[in-house]
This record gives sequence, C-alpha cells and structure tokens, in this order.
Amino acid sequence: MATHSVSTVFNDHMAFTANISGHNVRMDTTPDDGGEDSAPSPKRLMLASLAGCTGMDIVMILNKMKVVFSDFSIDVDASVTEEHPKIYNKVKLTYKIKLDVADQGKMEKAVSLSQDKYCGVSAMFRAFADLQTEIRYLD
Amino acid sequence: MATHSVSTVFNDHMAFTANISGHNVRMDTTPDDGGEDSAPSPKRLMLASLAGCTGMDIVMILNKMKVVFSDFSIDVDASVTEEHPKIYNKVKLTYKIKLDVADQGKMEKAVSLSQDKYCGVSAMFRAFADLQTEIRYLD
Repeated sequence: MATHSVSTVFNDHMAFTANISGHNVRMDTTPDDGGEDSAPSPKRLMLASLAGCTGMDIVMILNKMKVVFSDFSIDVDASVTEEHPKIYNKVKLTYKIKLDVADQGKMEKAVSLSQDKYCGVSAMFRAFADLQTEIRYLD
Repeated sequence: MATHSVSTVFNDHMAFTANISGHNVRMDTTPDDGGEDSAPSPKRLMLASLAGCTGMDIVMILNKMKVVFSDFSIDVDASVTEEHPKIYNKVKLTYKIKLDVADQGKMEKAVSLSQDKYCGVSAMFRAFADLQTEIRYLD
C-alpha cells in the first residue's frame, strides 16, 4: 500500500509551512485568531484540494476524448457547521467550461467518471458532506 | 451558517491555481499523469490541511496555558487505498516539540483538545480514515 507523507513546520505567530514532495505551502489564519493572514487557512485548503483533484480528472478525461475546451474553472462553496469541531457539511462544486455544444454530453460523462470513480478527494468529502455538482457552459 | 468559497482556475497541462481568500495556491501532478510536478498534488494538500488545522490549535492552546515551546512540527503519514477512488484510510499524526518536561502533560491536553473538540479537519478525516496521534518530545 502506498504511503503519502507530508512534514509541516511551525514558523511564528500562527503560520506553518508544509513540505509536500519538495513543494512548500504556507498556511496562516486571520488576526482574530492570532495570525497575520499571510497565507490560506488550513480548512479552506481542503476545498482547493477537492477542486484540483476533480479538475485534473476532467482535463485528463476530456483530453482522452479529444474534446477541445477553454476557460475551465471550478468554484467550491461549502457550508461550515456552527459548533466545534466545525466541518464542511454541504459542498457544491460548480464546473465552468467553454466547449462546443456537441461536446456537452462528453463533459457530463467526464464529471460523472470523476465523481463516481476516480476522484479520491471527492470520495473522502462524501464521507462527511453532502456533495453536489453543477456544470455551467460558458458562451 | 458560514460559507467558505474557493475559486480554482485551470492553467495548462494539469496545473490549476486556487484563489483562497486572496491567496493563490498552485496544484500540479507528476509527468506520469501529464503534469510537470511544478506544485503539490491536490490529494497531498489535504494532509497539509490536517497538519495546519491541528497545529494552529496546539499553538493557540499552549499560548493560553503560557507554555514555552520551540521546534514544533507535525508529520503526517497516510496510507492510500489501491483501487479507485484512492482515499486515505489510515493516517498518523506525529507532533514533534521541544518543551520543559514539566509541561508534557499540558501538551497532551492540547493534543486531546484539538483532536476531540476543536480541529474540524481532524473530525472530517475521522469520517473516512483511522486517525492516530503520537507526541515526540525533542531534547
């Protein structure tokens, strides 16, 4: 079984830097919590993780299907529970993309494949949140 | 109920950039998957998120307890399942810290408070993984 390892070092105030396979990612929090807002918050980083995971699936699948696309982005909107520990319990993924109308069925297929089969981060989110998806086709 | 929103844009090859409250975080994958390994992978980013979340709790709690510490870091080692969707099913958090022997009980209390009460990311991980913790006191 493969193992992923990440080492994270405390800097100062509330800031930490994670070393992820040689790439540094800094995290911080807002002044309300003693931070300096110098970097993203750890919890919100999970939403980037979700978008990146499913986004890479979509690019890989559309490329395999020879679908030409542009202006691809993903919005994640997540509701946070009010009591500690505060978790994301409702998450909406909105895929925005520009492609030929004839290829819309292929985009829908790509999203289904990512959500139902390939995207591990989406599968992990489904263990604690209601995860919804929507596709918006740009003109 | 509060909402967290993150917008993530496709760059090129397999790279995406997430905008998290005004902070940009790039994600990429390895050449095996069509990427250029220019940035961390989305899935591993979740492990940084976990370390940052519980790490900030610990710093906040130790500060409140007036505990002096240094050399604080957190290692995350996560087993990945072999079949799609590949998820983290076993996760180990190792807290490393230098502090006075007399304060070790306070550090254990801080880890318990983070894991059992405050850290939302840890709570989310527990929905899909067996999450273990260990504290190593540095000389």
